[in-house]
Amino acid sequence: MTTATEARLAMRGGEWTGMTTFKLPGWVQCNLVVLPKVDAYDFLVFCQRNPKACPVIEVTDPGNPEPRFSAPGADLRTDLARYAVYRKGVLTEEVEDIKPLWQEDSVAFLIGSSLTFDFALERAGVPMSQVRVLDTTIPTIPAGKFSGPLVVTVRLMTPAHAIIATQLTARFPFNHGAPIHIGDPGAIGVDLQRPLSGVPVTSVPPELVPVFWACGVTPQRVAMISKIDFMITHVSGYAFITDLKADQFCTP
Amino acid sequence: MTTATEARLAMRGGEWTGMTTFKLPGWVQCNLVVLPKVDAYDFLVFCQRNPKACPVIEVTDPGNPEPRFSAPGADLRTDLARYAVYRKGVLTEEVEDIKPLWQEDSVAFLIGSSLTFDFALERAGVPMSQVRVLDTTIPTIPAGKFSGPLVVTVRLMTPAHAIIATQLTARFPFNHGAPIHIGDPGAIGVDLQRPLSGVPVTSVPPELVPVFWACGVTPQRVAMISKIDFMITHVSGYAFITDLKADQFCTP
Repeated sequence: MTTATEARLAMRGGEWTGMTTFKLPGWVQCNLVVLPKVDAYDFLVFCQRNPKACPVIEVTDPGNPEPRFSAPGADLRTDLARYAVYRKGVLTEEVEDIKPLWQEDSVAFLIGSSLTFDFALERAGVPMSQVRVLDTTIPTIPAGKFSGPLVVTVRLMTPAHAIIATQLTARFPFNHGAPIHIGDPGAIGVDLQRPLSGVPVTSVPPELVPVFWACGVTPQRVAMISKIDFMITHVSGYAFITDLKADQFCTP
Repeated sequence: MTTATEARLAMRGGEWTGMTTFKLPGWVQCNLVVLPKVDAYDFLVFCQRNPKACPVIEVTDPGNPEPRFSAPGADLRTDLARYAVYRKGVLTEEVEDIKPLWQEDSVAFLIGSSLTFDFALERAGVPMSQVRVLDTTIPTIPAGKFSGPLVVTVRLMTPAHAIIATQLTARFPFNHGAPIHIGDPGAIGVDLQRPLSGVPVTSVPPELVPVFWACGVTPQRVAMISKIDFMITHVSGYAFITDLKADQFCTP
């Protein structure tokens, strides 16, 4: 399995059903949000106002499931391994195909994922560490009906690696960019023992520091808090793999 | 005249009627686009697809002329020195106040301006040079009814300065970022003798090279080409001055 196209076709065919975390080094991975056109404007303004959580890489034309710019020929209804469906703010099902749910006015948003920079961190000598997804008490800036708390990922690393990681991830503004916080989880309302996904952290080893990045799971929390009528997303860790090369999509 | 607020109030009061080019060093300057809500979604997608020409710094809530995030307390109907009004693709008037034209569903977009980085260039030893605005034959990526050619600015400088300017302006992704072209104007369909604004260049001195940046006048060309029903913009060179500091709004 070497190219983004092959990975997507394997997901389409049902041969790939697992996560994309630490898979397909070098390609930009994306979070997915699908909304009816009627909610698309407010959501796009929400993304503009919260670019660290929701850096928009592509917006599809209404009804067209092909991301023409970031992955020509792909089909966003089938080319992710796992989707989550939210109705009036409630997660009602997880599915492997959203063709039956796709509407003629559906708009898909691809939002950069921090999975993209995990390989860049490894290349820079920052060891791969388990990624947890966590709620914070930091509010996002609302837009229309969309509001709710910022969701973050946390990675535990040494202070020296935290400094490298801060510099390096700042080069990936379309994949959440630099951290939003380093150190005390309580300062941003995070409880490391209660992740939204990933294994709880019972205690942080004294030689490590928690480093927090804004996370593309934020729209899923916002859908729940704001009781959005109908929204489809990826499942955390099951990202869409674009044809964009991570190294061509970062700043100097 | 030292602060952004003072500058805006002077424009509001009619004491400041001139251009903002090379004025108010240090503050982020913005291009303005005002559209009825019905056209706002297509335009925001257009900006997402053409981020070098249209880096969005703020989208106001419908009907509210205050840019709450980039200049709290400002009024976008009065706080620019000069506005252009386009009706069905035709520039019908230039005015100093758009209060009579503002609708209850008007949405304002603030788009970063390259005027922001002119002082950074000067600080880096790149002499201030006259800025021209020019049409190209490079198409933008359309969105809905919005399509048309990319508009650029050109600055003439030595090759050594062009290298410095490329590195430096890449740090300002929300103010058009790095150049889109260096050298032969013909390669991007530019005629230096026919600028949209600024003095024609009859010949480029042999020691200088033209350096081209994507320009926030692009939406005005797009309004004309696409015959947009009703759109208000700033007049080229008469930008909106935000409270954002340029040095806090750039990458490492």
